[in-house]
Amino acid sequence: MKEVFARDLFQAKPTTIDQLVTMTGWVKTIRSGAHVSFLELNDGTDLRNIQVVLSAAELENYQAVIKLNLSATVKVVGQIALTPKAAQPFEIQATAVEVLGQAAADYPLQKKQHSFEFLRTQAHLRPRTATFYAVFKIRSLAAFAIHQFFQERGYVYVNTPIITSSDSEGAGEMFKVSALDFDHLPLTSTGTVDFSKEFFKKATNLTVSGQLPDEGFALAFRNTYTFGPAFRAEDSHTTRHTAEFWMIEPEMAFCDLAEMLQIEEQLIKYVINYLMTKAQPELMLLTEKVDADLIKKLKATTTSDFEVISYDHAIELLQQAPQTFTYPVKWGVALQSEHERYLCEEVYQRPVFVINYPEAIKAFYMRRNDDGKTVAAADLLVPGIGELVGGSQREERPQILSEKIATAGLNPAEYQWYLDLRRYGETSHSGFGLGFERLIMFLTGMTNIRDVIPYPRTPGEAEF
Amino acid sequence: MKEVFARDLFQAKPTTIDQLVTMTGWVKTIRSGAHVSFLELNDGTDLRNIQVVLSAAELENYQAVIKLNLSATVKVVGQIALTPKAAQPFEIQATAVEVLGQAAADYPLQKKQHSFEFLRTQAHLRPRTATFYAVFKIRSLAAFAIHQFFQERGYVYVNTPIITSSDSEGAGEMFKVSALDFDHLPLTSTGTVDFSKEFFKKATNLTVSGQLPDEGFALAFRNTYTFGPAFRAEDSHTTRHTAEFWMIEPEMAFCDLAEMLQIEEQLIKYVINYLMTKAQPELMLLTEKVDADLIKKLKATTTSDFEVISYDHAIELLQQAPQTFTYPVKWGVALQSEHERYLCEEVYQRPVFVINYPEAIKAFYMRRNDDGKTVAAADLLVPGIGELVGGSQREERPQILSEKIATAGLNPAEYQWYLDLRRYGETSHSGFGLGFERLIMFLTGMTNIRDVIPYPRTPGEAEF
Repeated sequence: MKEVFARDLFQAKPTTIDQLVTMTGWVKTIRSGAHVSFLELNDGTDLRNIQVVLSAAELENYQAVIKLNLSATVKVVGQIALTPKAAQPFEIQATAVEVLGQAAADYPLQKKQHSFEFLRTQAHLRPRTATFYAVFKIRSLAAFAIHQFFQERGYVYVNTPIITSSDSEGAGEMFKVSALDFDHLPLTSTGTVDFSKEFFKKATNLTVSGQLPDEGFALAFRNTYTFGPAFRAEDSHTTRHTAEFWMIEPEMAFCDLAEMLQIEEQLIKYVINYLMTKAQPELMLLTEKVDADLIKKLKATTTSDFEVISYDHAIELLQQAPQTFTYPVKWGVALQSEHERYLCEEVYQRPVFVINYPEAIKAFYMRRNDDGKTVAAADLLVPGIGELVGGSQREERPQILSEKIATAGLNPAEYQWYLDLRRYGETSHSGFGLGFERLIMFLTGMTNIRDVIPYPRTPGEAEF
Repeated sequence: MKEVFARDLFQAKPTTIDQLVTMTGWVKTIRSGAHVSFLELNDGTDLRNIQVVLSAAELENYQAVIKLNLSATVKVVGQIALTPKAAQPFEIQATAVEVLGQAAADYPLQKKQHSFEFLRTQAHLRPRTATFYAVFKIRSLAAFAIHQFFQERGYVYVNTPIITSSDSEGAGEMFKVSALDFDHLPLTSTGTVDFSKEFFKKATNLTVSGQLPDEGFALAFRNTYTFGPAFRAEDSHTTRHTAEFWMIEPEMAFCDLAEMLQIEEQLIKYVINYLMTKAQPELMLLTEKVDADLIKKLKATTTSDFEVISYDHAIELLQQAPQTFTYPVKWGVALQSEHERYLCEEVYQRPVFVINYPEAIKAFYMRRNDDGKTVAAADLLVPGIGELVGGSQREERPQILSEKIATAGLNPAEYQWYLDLRRYGETSHSGFGLGFERLIMFLTGMTNIRDVIPYPRTPGEAEF
């Protein structure tokens, strides 16, 4: 007998009745009666449940089945019947139900709605709820859409190192990676830890960005991208920060800032369009349960032209704003979340690129503009999130790059290989970093980053 | 003027001559003459170079161009001319060459062939060589083929945590992750390190496997997979081990061992067929330069039926072998690389699944068979590599799983969530782990794992 999957049944919209089929899955609910009961079955392949009609006259084990606990597993044999007048388009009239596995009665996800806070303590079970099913399905589809976007355009995927001996851009606190016995650390003659005894014969950290090693590959393959985890040991307790997150970092050779902005805009629109095709049920559920404006917002994003404004102009707009900000604004300051959201939510009501930031507030590898005081950087600000993407044209002139490495207080010897990438074939090139979780927040309407990561890592939290 | 890319030119096999085109790229070689010179240009989009004909009569800056160092960057304007009698199908007759960027004369990758050992010291530059271009292009394409294989089948991609407080399967040495100051470690009253002062308020490690958290998602989505980095702090100095590697770990609910083997076989064949279509020039180059049997071996893999033998039978075959092994063989021992390779290279000459291993030598989560002494495990052995994939049906019976957790000496409290996955809906399920670098070695013919990772991490090596 043919085993069928919910995904295929919903896609095919079965028009033939009386097909005898087999399905396996989890019991989501049972509405029981003396003679007829209704079992909502989820087989994992679709957000939507399949209604299974149980009839006492038909099933020998009727009494046992209708007493099953939620999340028990069953194999159902039955006939598909169309139900054009009901909420669901079809149902299965069971001729046999085999109980495959029991579920304990203390299953924490009973029918009532649970808070996201509670569900965070059940990270291993929460994908079984409709909302988290939708979120993590969208996460998976978005990841694939990103790969497909780049692969279709000939970009080469690069796995840059996770364990690194450099401190990359000198940005933020890093986690240390060690194979030493902390209770018996080897010491040097001066009494400090002897890192030459480490596994790697030196101190190492978890990467904060794959950009620099990725640049090496872009200068061979022209267009590359990373998609992997990155880490910050910052004691942030906000809804937008985690210690462990995933990033997409494309690098494009023979590409200037303006061309890069086009690629970013195309990428965001591509991912949304992919979801509009592949994740309709999930987007509809999230629009119903999480963010009533979600689908409208996503559609508007695909049809709008992203705005491009200079940092100078952004500062003017913020200074002229009819509201006061917590952080005062003047030329030279970094933009805070409140400023970013004002620009994209209030002024433009769509995604906004802010370009040409003051050199002093941006990373050393960003290309110095001819004005001598700004760099060819671009941050993409989106409604509801603020900064979603940060990128720049990279400084390709060896002499200016050397100077910027020194000014940043970095060790020139450690960056010699990075300089050599320029010394051996100076090439204009650009790249950006897209925080994957921030993108998923934008795509799902979820407002806490902990709710878009399978098992989030935040200060004090590393369970499962 | 139209900017064209080598990839498109080779695919389109230009039949129209006299097209005026623009190309940008890196100088790979120049064969110079007084009046005519030939510049091999690589634009990064294709393994193959484009021959550019430079004519002194045509180019004002002819002398400057022909003296360019290797790896300088140029913009060429010229006409496409078909060259049906030459090695390359077409060339570009330059009407103008603009020098975009210089390259220093001490460029380490001069024309002569370099050893792989030397090139490992130039990990930032080696993708500019043809062999490593081919290897890393194949790595990128294989990664995408794997994603596409699973996504086409409705599998959900899960990013399992990298930082973990569990020691997963109790397998191997783990790297510690810490945000403490090693020179001033906080101590408890008994003088040991006080891990409650850690960022996560406990000791944490780098993951060795995403399997266990992935199982939680498989029991919601039915079919899931991970694709991410994993780590082992083992002081191995072999050609097959690194401290940091990438793994693919699918988990399938309502799936037994036999069904899982089919999925593994389909996956391997799918990836090879994808490369046969998308990476012909790369496979041909590697067959020429690295492994003369490569294409033959890959084709044979796609057309052969993978063999399935029991561990019992494998032991018999090894005991009857007409050769002696370094590690003696008897029922109960783990198979060594020499045994694995004998089975797939000598006995069967194709991929072999060995199934039903002794329970005592396999991980606690593998399902106990009815014989009470073996588990439903399967390792896939492939010629030239040995073990490529390890998998099993998972123990879904809560009581037996509890027992196995205790026998393995693991802390039951730490695995309560994992047990609960079964307590709340017992489901047969299976999964496997595919080492991505081993797969790339199989697909490229490269024999040292350091040569299939962009920036490898091995004992004492964490450069770039």
